[in-house]
Amino acid sequence: MKTSGSSSEMVAALATALGGDLVLSGQDIERYCRDWHGDVTTGAVAVIRPRSTAEVCAAVRAIRALGLSIVPQGGNTGLVLGCTPDDPSRQVIVSLERMTAIRRIDEDDFSAVVEAGVILSEFKDRVEEAGLYFPLALGAQGSCRIGGNVSTNAGGINVLRYGMTRELVLGLEVVLPDGSVFEGLSTLRKDNRGIDLKQLFIGAEGTLGIITAVSVKLMPPAEKVATALLGLGTLSDAIALYRRARRDCCDLMSAFEFMPPIAFTLAQEAIPDLAMPMSADYPAYVLMEISGSGLVDIEDLMHRFLEGVMEDGLVLDGVIAASRSQAKNLWLFREGMNEGQARRGPHLRTDISVPLSRLATFVEAAEAAVTVRLPGCICVSYGHVGDGNVHLNVLPPGGLSGEEVQQQIYEAKGVINAVLDDFGGSISAEHGIGRLKKADFLQRLPPVQRRLLTAVKQAIDPDWIMNPGCQLNSDTDS
Amino acid sequence: MKTSGSSSEMVAALATALGGDLVLSGQDIERYCRDWHGDVTTGAVAVIRPRSTAEVCAAVRAIRALGLSIVPQGGNTGLVLGCTPDDPSRQVIVSLERMTAIRRIDEDDFSAVVEAGVILSEFKDRVEEAGLYFPLALGAQGSCRIGGNVSTNAGGINVLRYGMTRELVLGLEVVLPDGSVFEGLSTLRKDNRGIDLKQLFIGAEGTLGIITAVSVKLMPPAEKVATALLGLGTLSDAIALYRRARRDCCDLMSAFEFMPPIAFTLAQEAIPDLAMPMSADYPAYVLMEISGSGLVDIEDLMHRFLEGVMEDGLVLDGVIAASRSQAKNLWLFREGMNEGQARRGPHLRTDISVPLSRLATFVEAAEAAVTVRLPGCICVSYGHVGDGNVHLNVLPPGGLSGEEVQQQIYEAKGVINAVLDDFGGSISAEHGIGRLKKADFLQRLPPVQRRLLTAVKQAIDPDWIMNPGCQLNSDTDS
Repeated sequence: MKTSGSSSEMVAALATALGGDLVLSGQDIERYCRDWHGDVTTGAVAVIRPRSTAEVCAAVRAIRALGLSIVPQGGNTGLVLGCTPDDPSRQVIVSLERMTAIRRIDEDDFSAVVEAGVILSEFKDRVEEAGLYFPLALGAQGSCRIGGNVSTNAGGINVLRYGMTRELVLGLEVVLPDGSVFEGLSTLRKDNRGIDLKQLFIGAEGTLGIITAVSVKLMPPAEKVATALLGLGTLSDAIALYRRARRDCCDLMSAFEFMPPIAFTLAQEAIPDLAMPMSADYPAYVLMEISGSGLVDIEDLMHRFLEGVMEDGLVLDGVIAASRSQAKNLWLFREGMNEGQARRGPHLRTDISVPLSRLATFVEAAEAAVTVRLPGCICVSYGHVGDGNVHLNVLPPGGLSGEEVQQQIYEAKGVINAVLDDFGGSISAEHGIGRLKKADFLQRLPPVQRRLLTAVKQAIDPDWIMNPGCQLNSDTDS
Repeated sequence: MKTSGSSSEMVAALATALGGDLVLSGQDIERYCRDWHGDVTTGAVAVIRPRSTAEVCAAVRAIRALGLSIVPQGGNTGLVLGCTPDDPSRQVIVSLERMTAIRRIDEDDFSAVVEAGVILSEFKDRVEEAGLYFPLALGAQGSCRIGGNVSTNAGGINVLRYGMTRELVLGLEVVLPDGSVFEGLSTLRKDNRGIDLKQLFIGAEGTLGIITAVSVKLMPPAEKVATALLGLGTLSDAIALYRRARRDCCDLMSAFEFMPPIAFTLAQEAIPDLAMPMSADYPAYVLMEISGSGLVDIEDLMHRFLEGVMEDGLVLDGVIAASRSQAKNLWLFREGMNEGQARRGPHLRTDISVPLSRLATFVEAAEAAVTVRLPGCICVSYGHVGDGNVHLNVLPPGGLSGEEVQQQIYEAKGVINAVLDDFGGSISAEHGIGRLKKADFLQRLPPVQRRLLTAVKQAIDPDWIMNPGCQLNSDTDS
């Protein structure tokens, strides 16, 4: 299939096929063509905004008929350029933002069926109104959309308790590259009918089809939440604390984040009136949350746990939030430190995982390697201890030119990835591959896996019209 | 590829290629060719018993070179003929029973790497010795092997808390149909590098490759277990109780099984000196387990929970086990009823799931439909409430010929499946498809999904040498 005709002719053809109301072009598509961080601004032939699964099917057929390809997009909050076109003259964005129906919330069944364009926080609110809980929790939850969460197998702060998005999905509805519909919106908890095809689409970042609706598990509400900020001697102690907490707290932990001392400085740069809840002099901090419903006294559990670990010297100091608003304040440090990093200008953001048992030695080794190679840089390592997931970010020193900064970022990434490879880690713990991490991904992909991935892609999308340039290269490009 | 040569020539060729020690034939292979229930006895060209991944690769290549196909086998405890050959003159069984190394148990990492042939209960014991817990729990755990558990995505009694086997798997090593190895034995908790290929092999029942080793999640030990047997007024009450228990007990339930009154009779037929722990006159029974470690008082939680639900009249009577041996006795009813059914002779066994909210009405409707059509039959419905998973078995009356019994079983299945289809249920909640359920599976498979499944199979196993006849038919047969 070859693309023919000018961009405006193709827009006109799409409008004729689908109705003008579905098709955006020109200035109207700018926000769809810019990535979440604002690092990349690109273009597309058009943006199609279907309102129903049938309209998605029609869009796929129309785009295919023109010899163009498709970049599916949800809330456009991805961090790896998974929904940012890289071939503006041949790619059409299909935005799911108008498919916003919550088709069903079934309290008796602990399940819901929701369209791809529903914003995560809105869905969480509706589920809460129904007396239940959807545990996926991300920084971008006010903007990201469920379809994108599933497509990227999003992680977040509750993974240690509830798993990645994959583990929350019961069923999918997917429009396939030929415009047919994979109808799998079951809400069965247990359904073991052979090969589970839906798993392929979770984490595929739109390279195999367009997820249009999802059925998910719901949980009992986390009625009681105990939040604590703890000061520790080392990151190793934080990991020992996590292990102990899993046992002592019966796997009722819903978050266990670690932060370096600089977290406070960065958070205060972003939120100047943020009060320090405790001394900022401890080498490691943990923000820990236990939650549950019903008859277990969560607050008492947190108190008894902390009593024990402070007596044993594992935790040096701690603050337990006495109210929801105090808990929110503790979380501001975690959230503010991200904003604070952004204010310091361009920097390296990573999303790394290693086996839990090697997390502390990895961070130590990687930070040391960066410091040796790039002496002026500041390393900011924080993340989700329970998942072995660290965001080891590197902030170049002030006074450099834009080009020098980019060079330092590039070098820092190389240094960190080299250490990571030695530790058997992953270059993408939760953010996915997209276009940003494709080269690093393919470079490390064993030939057998590459061959299998390509064969599966080819089997489902033989013309490579679904999100080309994302994750894999077609045989001819690679 | 065409098969040529006599069976004994092929056995000789395999022995030459692989060494005689790896190849069994003749009378030595009988036990591999009989299914777990003893319903089917068949044959195979040979049984190959590799001791290492390299030997599995060699076996695959040797079998392929002879134009034969492969039926992978673990503990041969499957219930749907997934590892029972259906073409004895062209199929070679590859048994993983000699690959029994536990490669690593990492307490600090809550993970283990284990070869496919390790028996589940032996693995669980070894993990327990290391102070941790592997939660997969099945009736067959003394015989089934981890590779088979993963290949069939096994369920069991702890699914409501820990998920199916799929959710316990961190990584896989798989020998592919061309003899190459998919090396994915990562123990990373979080690794979001695009399409997750390993998911394809989980539940594929050996149709895409041979799983040779698995890395799995381990859990903190369930140090404290509270077990209770409860009498209720209806199955609906049991479901209401489950919902309440999820909230009240903070998702710390590890089992929630329901049983009909006849369970006691059946169990006592199998275990004559089994004592009745309570009146056998309640219309529904629940066997419930709460478990955990550390600082949560599990026994107190169970007591307070039962106090509340008995006060509210949801539970009519209850017995809490005061010791591990008492708990074991309560479980004997659940286990004994299976044995009791077997003693009554051939009967229909099903493995059905429906949405939780429809479980009680489904059982009522399906039992009524069976009773109308086959008046002398006894329905025995029991199962895993939290998963919406019921085993609705049907026992034909005494005094029928073998043929008449088979006819009643066949008719009962048709009646139940018709009701099931109306309820949007699954014909296989946890047992898989294999050969036994293939016709019923394919009959219900939407054309789009069938096309996708076939395309994926074709992409990974283009010559259909992996477990042909299981799950799917090749295009030419279908």
